[in-house]
Amino acid sequence: MSFVSFDIEGRASYGVWKDQQTWIQAPSEFEARYPDLKSVIAADRLDELDRVARTLGRTVSAGQARLLPVIPNPGKILCVGLNYKSHVAETKRADSEYPAIFTRFADSLLAHDAPMPKPKATQRFDFEAELAVIIGNGGRAIPQARAFEHIAGYACFNDGTARDWQRHTHQWTPGKNFPATGPFGPYMATPREIPDVNRLTIASRLNGQVMQQASLADLIYTLPVIIEYLSGFTTLSPGDVIATGTPGGVGDRRDPPVYMVAGDVIEIEITGLGVLRNVITDEA
Amino acid sequence: MSFVSFDIEGRASYGVWKDQQTWIQAPSEFEARYPDLKSVIAADRLDELDRVARTLGRTVSAGQARLLPVIPNPGKILCVGLNYKSHVAETKRADSEYPAIFTRFADSLLAHDAPMPKPKATQRFDFEAELAVIIGNGGRAIPQARAFEHIAGYACFNDGTARDWQRHTHQWTPGKNFPATGPFGPYMATPREIPDVNRLTIASRLNGQVMQQASLADLIYTLPVIIEYLSGFTTLSPGDVIATGTPGGVGDRRDPPVYMVAGDVIEIEITGLGVLRNVITDEA
Repeated sequence: MSFVSFDIEGRASYGVWKDQQTWIQAPSEFEARYPDLKSVIAADRLDELDRVARTLGRTVSAGQARLLPVIPNPGKILCVGLNYKSHVAETKRADSEYPAIFTRFADSLLAHDAPMPKPKATQRFDFEAELAVIIGNGGRAIPQARAFEHIAGYACFNDGTARDWQRHTHQWTPGKNFPATGPFGPYMATPREIPDVNRLTIASRLNGQVMQQASLADLIYTLPVIIEYLSGFTTLSPGDVIATGTPGGVGDRRDPPVYMVAGDVIEIEITGLGVLRNVITDEA
Repeated sequence: MSFVSFDIEGRASYGVWKDQQTWIQAPSEFEARYPDLKSVIAADRLDELDRVARTLGRTVSAGQARLLPVIPNPGKILCVGLNYKSHVAETKRADSEYPAIFTRFADSLLAHDAPMPKPKATQRFDFEAELAVIIGNGGRAIPQARAFEHIAGYACFNDGTARDWQRHTHQWTPGKNFPATGPFGPYMATPREIPDVNRLTIASRLNGQVMQQASLADLIYTLPVIIEYLSGFTTLSPGDVIATGTPGGVGDRRDPPVYMVAGDVIEIEITGLGVLRNVITDEA
């Protein structure tokens, strides 16, 4: 089962992903009970959404509606830095006993296929292909052994970064929070579709050229380790998003460096999670 | 004018601060229009709230109600690190051209007078006296010269920190986001009450002993510089909170170090902004 959020006739809605061009809107009685995909997840009703949408829902074509970030309004977006050996190596940082954690605000998210604005304030706008985990059951102090029970789904994520602002100081917040720089989608797939995260491969392509490519088996901190660590200091809630880090090959560490400019096409692809594609524009 | 949020008869409300023991609840017709203090700020109706509460509001005593964090539900909490020379010196860090920015989640906030839970996971629980700025008019790319027009008010803040978790890596997020470790209050005062921030003094006291004491004139990055910088990468919205950094004297940098344990009383006091007082408890 795969799910999307979208804007149709001027309001936010959601439903089931059929293919790139076709989605099925949640029936209105269902939507009256659960105003957004996050509340469906909180009520543990994704199975029911899939069933009622397929039997009673309206088919929507991409021409009629506009995708939103899979979860447009997560309470928390927690991001793991330096989680692939290939990326740690290119940044020349030492290994660490703990994952490096930073945050994004929800207004930094962006939908699949939406124009991705290069901030005026940066000339070093970079991509980061990441697997996003969407929390289902929330909790505090979740042990590794139970971590997968707390995952509602997976999606592609592009942790778009203003490298200069990221490195103004040791804290990365500014470079990670420009508006609409975090593409998230196109859809989320449930763990039933993704039975073994270790078998996924992740890649980014800039104008068709592969820039990053890795196996999710390469994660230094696995999903259970990340979920145990995060829930060790903060309460995870349904719809919260964890961006799990990016592999080597980012533009900023290339020689010469490669940065995204208006007109570039950036794609993130993960096995079973589709292609998250955005065209860079100049910030208005 | 000074304002508070509080819980009364099992629901969240808000109103005017008279004194430590007496608040005036917003009249119900007013509250019907503006469900919380943040929405009053967004509508630019603090003047009206003060007037209608004083003429039509119900007086509430501290026995009937329980304070909440001044703004219980800010969209963004942005925190400045290393913003007093005395604190930079004790951390032995170099000066920086830019402020170090990290974030807190709203569930890390705590009310004045509420028990402040020392996380089970830390033995290095520390205080940080800070001036909090509450945003009124939001915006992006706010120039320094107009920054004060975007401030709705000021309050005391205690950026309670698990020092060990803060230093697990170079990113401070984990140590700054344990639940209910960020006291914020007791009230917010508007700029009319605080005409010159540079004349404020800030102090923390642990069990009555002064631990930190400074003038707000000592800020390395002034409020206009901070607001220009933050709005340079993210949109500020009404009710957003900026914690502006802590002066030297934190417990962790003392010899021997001093950490907070159950039973300790931690107080933050800023001229004109009252005393923010919490008793430490062990996390349940």
